[in-house]
Amino acid sequence: MTDLDLMSTLAQKGDTKMVLLVMDGLGGLPRETGGPTELEAAATPNLDRLAREGMVGLMHTVDIGISPGSGPGHLGLFGYDPLKYLIGRGVLEAVGIGLALTDQDVAARGNFCTVDGNGLITDRRAGRIPTEECARMVGLIEDITLPGVEVIVKPVREYRFALVLRGSGLSPHLNETDPQKTGLKPIPVQAQDGSPEARHTAELVGMWVEKVRERIKNEHPANMVTLRGWAKEPGLPSMEQVFKIRAAALAVYPMYKGLASLAGMTLIGGLANLDDQLQALRREWNAFDFFFFHYKYTDSRGEDGDFDAKVKEIEKVDKIIPQIVELKPDVLVVTGDHSTPAVLKSHSWHPVPVLMWAPGVSRSNPNVTGFGESQCLMGALGQFRASSLMGLITAHALRQIKFGA
Amino acid sequence: MTDLDLMSTLAQKGDTKMVLLVMDGLGGLPRETGGPTELEAAATPNLDRLAREGMVGLMHTVDIGISPGSGPGHLGLFGYDPLKYLIGRGVLEAVGIGLALTDQDVAARGNFCTVDGNGLITDRRAGRIPTEECARMVGLIEDITLPGVEVIVKPVREYRFALVLRGSGLSPHLNETDPQKTGLKPIPVQAQDGSPEARHTAELVGMWVEKVRERIKNEHPANMVTLRGWAKEPGLPSMEQVFKIRAAALAVYPMYKGLASLAGMTLIGGLANLDDQLQALRREWNAFDFFFFHYKYTDSRGEDGDFDAKVKEIEKVDKIIPQIVELKPDVLVVTGDHSTPAVLKSHSWHPVPVLMWAPGVSRSNPNVTGFGESQCLMGALGQFRASSLMGLITAHALRQIKFGA
Repeated sequence: MTDLDLMSTLAQKGDTKMVLLVMDGLGGLPRETGGPTELEAAATPNLDRLAREGMVGLMHTVDIGISPGSGPGHLGLFGYDPLKYLIGRGVLEAVGIGLALTDQDVAARGNFCTVDGNGLITDRRAGRIPTEECARMVGLIEDITLPGVEVIVKPVREYRFALVLRGSGLSPHLNETDPQKTGLKPIPVQAQDGSPEARHTAELVGMWVEKVRERIKNEHPANMVTLRGWAKEPGLPSMEQVFKIRAAALAVYPMYKGLASLAGMTLIGGLANLDDQLQALRREWNAFDFFFFHYKYTDSRGEDGDFDAKVKEIEKVDKIIPQIVELKPDVLVVTGDHSTPAVLKSHSWHPVPVLMWAPGVSRSNPNVTGFGESQCLMGALGQFRASSLMGLITAHALRQIKFGA
Repeated sequence: MTDLDLMSTLAQKGDTKMVLLVMDGLGGLPRETGGPTELEAAATPNLDRLAREGMVGLMHTVDIGISPGSGPGHLGLFGYDPLKYLIGRGVLEAVGIGLALTDQDVAARGNFCTVDGNGLITDRRAGRIPTEECARMVGLIEDITLPGVEVIVKPVREYRFALVLRGSGLSPHLNETDPQKTGLKPIPVQAQDGSPEARHTAELVGMWVEKVRERIKNEHPANMVTLRGWAKEPGLPSMEQVFKIRAAALAVYPMYKGLASLAGMTLIGGLANLDDQLQALRREWNAFDFFFFHYKYTDSRGEDGDFDAKVKEIEKVDKIIPQIVELKPDVLVVTGDHSTPAVLKSHSWHPVPVLMWAPGVSRSNPNVTGFGESQCLMGALGQFRASSLMGLITAHALRQIKFGA
């Protein structure tokens, strides 16, 4: 029995309301030994009150010592153990720019590259062309057609683009065409198993690559492509199936909408900022049981290495907490999908602080006075893996029956 | 290698003594935010001393966020990961009323129900007839015989009864006959796989149901039965095999005796109260290495929603601690099989407090002054799953060799 089978056995419908507020990259590190982290430095009176009234802890979104990408980090939050439910690079790339995938799709991550007169790669990233140039290049190839399938090409960032083939009988069991070093030709695409689907897909991709080569051979520096990360939409059991909840995503960025859609959430569209998100939360309050509320800029400022700016972003989110509490959620969780300490300018493996406020069903954290990494060490939730989070949330929302008699 | 294989590789015989004192449903919740739980509100000077001298922690008897039934909760305590060792409903029902099962048995949970003149179910629980009426109904059908097998029928509670077929070549791979809604006929029982054993068992059960129908068709409201939760005695490796201990159960209630018998413990009979249990503990001290000592009423008062009464039950158990310590156990563990917070009136997912007193081999808990959920947060045992408990107990009893050279 998988964890999700177990959850779907125990989960019950109900009328309780749950909010999962994700401050992307929330966890941090002190600027100097013994100093506060970004969250600890921030003035967060509202979160501090919830921490005292509820429970806090530390959460490993993938596993101890693992720095999560945004995909696995969020899948963990949504209840899918990211070490069991692997999402291919091609799908993450497509989802990351907001492409809604179907079960007929095979997706790959594409790179524009530079080849010499003999077709040997001289730059695997085409001089890291700017995103606008990538968009212009995609414009040159996006109308290439293939027999019997739909072809979707979209620019991602710099030299990267997403390729999706949509049609019946396609297979992602193809090799990567990037030889991973210069001085070699792109590897022809071939089936990685003997299935007719893989052979058919390889043939189509080969045709596409050849047409692309013809179209852009006189461009510079991007005059060829490589393809990797072949993957199909993973077909995850939806959060509705697993947890018996109607789940809505209130996210601004395409990547997080895409991840939410993999989990089967309903995407609430047209949201550009926190105010939009709060309005949508109020508007949709009766229509859903569970709300994934995503805030991006804590991560962005961490990635910038700007400690003080990340502190300010955390304070902005603290200010909206009363408006969420006002709606009287049965469970409000505030956490991150991973840590992004400004001192590291990148995602890190440090467990993320997690706060669970569930009036009436919370143990107390007697030594906890606020929300911060050091306080979370003493919290009633202890340290746990994110794949247990949705179980904890639905338990606190009294949405589970007991296991066994 | 399963956990139990590992344990049986490491476990050693010895002459140390272990006591596992289970206060059923021990864990609780504050009545108001920030207040004490039942255990924290109770005056427990003896347990507090053991907590200071020993180690405390919090334990998930099934897993994080899962509310354990009594069966899985106790299996976890006895060392059997309840997510791996699934015990069928039928077996738990039989075991719960003290039926000792053999490996020749197939057990089901039965419901008396009401059908109309066309055989359609009008009430799946026969109006929740009282237990006495259930016993009378069982009296009408308990002498029904089947060719080649023994048939055991016992009343459980209200409309529920236990059915056991005992004989060779029986299989539990049968469908449930309860259609789960009214307006339908009971589903005929059929083999769920193609084995001759399942077909044979289905045939026998079909005969039994038909005979029951004939016998009770003019009764009211219980004039038919449905059957579900078909299961065989799970054949767990005994605690003696796994941990090399002679284990005895000192329990008053049939359910806990039954669960102890699934784990291969020796049942000490004739115990009606704490005094009896203490006397038996003293009397059997030399005959066994390990004693499972079960106290029910902490859970009962929690289920009643009576916070103060649960506090009093905890205090009663605290008073007997010196009599157990007097026997000089090498390891004394005090814990629960799950939490039953009075405010929830039901089993809950909250991790249970655990206290392990093992003179000479304990780390200290420098911040711990007593036994309670909040104190356990700071304890040397941390948070862990109950399937690790028996390993910890036998380790502290110096009953394990090291793993690897």
